[in-house]
Amino acid sequence: MRRQNLALVLREVAAAGPLSRADVAAASGLTRAAVSSLVEELIGSGLLAELGPAPSGRVGRPGTALTLNPQGPAGLGAEVGVEHLAACAVDLRGEVRAWRRVAADNRTRPAAETLADLAALLRTVAAEVAPELHPAGLGLAVPGLVGVQAGLVQRAANLGWSGLPVIAVLRSQLRAVGAPELAALPAEVDNEANLGGLAELWLGGHDGAEDFVHISAEAGIGAALIVAGRLFRGARGFAGELGHVPVEPEGPPCPCGARGCLEQYAGERAVRRAAGTAAVGGDWVGLLTERAAAGDRAVLAALERAGTALGTAVAGAVNLIDPAAVILGGGYAELGEWLLPGMHRELAARVTVRPWSPEWLAVSSLGRRGPLLGAATGVVRAIVEDPGRFAAR
Amino acid sequence: MRRQNLALVLREVAAAGPLSRADVAAASGLTRAAVSSLVEELIGSGLLAELGPAPSGRVGRPGTALTLNPQGPAGLGAEVGVEHLAACAVDLRGEVRAWRRVAADNRTRPAAETLADLAALLRTVAAEVAPELHPAGLGLAVPGLVGVQAGLVQRAANLGWSGLPVIAVLRSQLRAVGAPELAALPAEVDNEANLGGLAELWLGGHDGAEDFVHISAEAGIGAALIVAGRLFRGARGFAGELGHVPVEPEGPPCPCGARGCLEQYAGERAVRRAAGTAAVGGDWVGLLTERAAAGDRAVLAALERAGTALGTAVAGAVNLIDPAAVILGGGYAELGEWLLPGMHRELAARVTVRPWSPEWLAVSSLGRRGPLLGAATGVVRAIVEDPGRFAAR
Repeated sequence: MRRQNLALVLREVAAAGPLSRADVAAASGLTRAAVSSLVEELIGSGLLAELGPAPSGRVGRPGTALTLNPQGPAGLGAEVGVEHLAACAVDLRGEVRAWRRVAADNRTRPAAETLADLAALLRTVAAEVAPELHPAGLGLAVPGLVGVQAGLVQRAANLGWSGLPVIAVLRSQLRAVGAPELAALPAEVDNEANLGGLAELWLGGHDGAEDFVHISAEAGIGAALIVAGRLFRGARGFAGELGHVPVEPEGPPCPCGARGCLEQYAGERAVRRAAGTAAVGGDWVGLLTERAAAGDRAVLAALERAGTALGTAVAGAVNLIDPAAVILGGGYAELGEWLLPGMHRELAARVTVRPWSPEWLAVSSLGRRGPLLGAATGVVRAIVEDPGRFAAR
Repeated sequence: MRRQNLALVLREVAAAGPLSRADVAAASGLTRAAVSSLVEELIGSGLLAELGPAPSGRVGRPGTALTLNPQGPAGLGAEVGVEHLAACAVDLRGEVRAWRRVAADNRTRPAAETLADLAALLRTVAAEVAPELHPAGLGLAVPGLVGVQAGLVQRAANLGWSGLPVIAVLRSQLRAVGAPELAALPAEVDNEANLGGLAELWLGGHDGAEDFVHISAEAGIGAALIVAGRLFRGARGFAGELGHVPVEPEGPPCPCGARGCLEQYAGERAVRRAAGTAAVGGDWVGLLTERAAAGDRAVLAALERAGTALGTAVAGAVNLIDPAAVILGGGYAELGEWLLPGMHRELAARVTVRPWSPEWLAVSSLGRRGPLLGAATGVVRAIVEDPGRFAAR
């Protein structure tokens, strides 16, 4: 009961703070004495902080304003991309306090090397926010298949990973770079598309939108299915493999063994090849954006083809699962101007037996930052939702 | 609290009956006095019946065995097909006590005529089980789009229905055929694919299987997505439109306005046309089964093409929503022998980035009886789950 009430108080402050103790009592229905005791415990755990007198507009001594502690526990996020590594720290309010992204060719090197560099990046980020913030947990985003088995990446084809206990390896590398306190944190790994979808749910600014498909197109194409405000993972944890939905049964062969998968039209490699930019290194999304804006015909044709294929596959998904909205996220959010026309056309043509409005397709405001934000934000959201569990650690 | 305990007692008897009052007390954790009082109320409402002395194996006076009342409230089911009407009654135990199915050409005639005939059929079924059983509710299965608005069919293209308040019209026809007591029953309409999927969940004998896609192929092709033991309806109530998932973007035109929808390969009309049986009336599933068994090449080729297209579309669905199993139901359950090879082949080829086993594709044992069984069974399941609400009516 006390554990539930701790959560209730913290949620009130998170949702509407700064609040005085009296405000919290009024909003929660708890007595002022109970609120005072709960607040003391939350301050003691470093979860709440006092800002000084709160403007109450009421007669009498003003209460002290309470806020989520901006100098307390932090969520660490980490991301392994095919060509980059990234790490960040967010405070309890969800504000980004440190953010690092470095280029790295992770395609061919051993997982231990990749994760050693990631461990060093995490140590840097943690040092940047110390001593104000102390990491309370770590979320890791990877471009691969993560099942129900905790800490394990079943397969990340673009990284050459298979059956990798990624959390255990990362912990070992954190110890090796002299960060045993980070190695000891609670840590979870998830697919980047799932974390991008959760970031969209938590931070995307779609007020009250709790049923949508978030399309995350990076090296691979994944979807996060958000149903009733939660990530729908499927019976075995593998839902959302939009990239291998067939677009043309006899289309180009896919490394997965099938033919005509969506990735063969709209995946990074397919688009870069069609756009004639396969050999150009660096930020491929930025490059395509620049060339498309300049009217490069091959690039425009490649994006048109990708948008059409995305629209065909997403039309099938809409017919099947009936989401309230579809959000184009990840790197493709920046290419929305050129991808959306084909998507809109296919959706209008193929979603006809049930209602569909063009307004239900939108572009993410988080874009490529989504997965890393989702990884870090998940840590602090878990604390705010159940502060009793955090305090008990 | 009493309402919850009524449900608890009834569920115990439904799950493990016949049981004595002592058995119920032991299984439920309620006192024997409480169970006795609850049982009296349930007997009074006609939900429980006494069978006579129960063999207890214990010393002392044997208790009386309790069972769901086989002579109490009944669930009425009704079904409008493109070429048939059907109605049935099931008792509280879920046993079918009356079943009527008649041929009817509902494709072109006014909805009121179709529903007048259905009303007469329902009156016949109710008379067949009277006075032993008294209908407590009515479930209606239709081959059309039913949204979140109660009692309304948004669209049933094969029947020419659009925006039809089908429950209101059926009530009026029930009054017209002299069955005002049936017109006054609580009644619900749902899509036949949804009800077929629920029947599979409740009666299909897949013990503990609570996450599957049930494919219902009649005039149209629909899917019911069963997630965690419940029907997943989507954000607006239109999930499961598998028939309009694109199989080939530039495939044959579909009446829905798109091209290459699954129905153009595996829907009744497409299969009959490809099989050369479009002009033959009567039971088309039976006819195809007979000719396929006799080695008719056109029929075999048509079913092979349908199975391949079903496999392609279902592979996309599996990649997207990761069900534990796929069940081929409806009329296509009888054609499984010829449809499954293509489905297995496509699933094996296209579901490769996550685990897939051929055992996870199975054929429904309910087949074409599914939607009507689901419609009637839903009524009695609702009573057993919340007998307090029933008794209060």
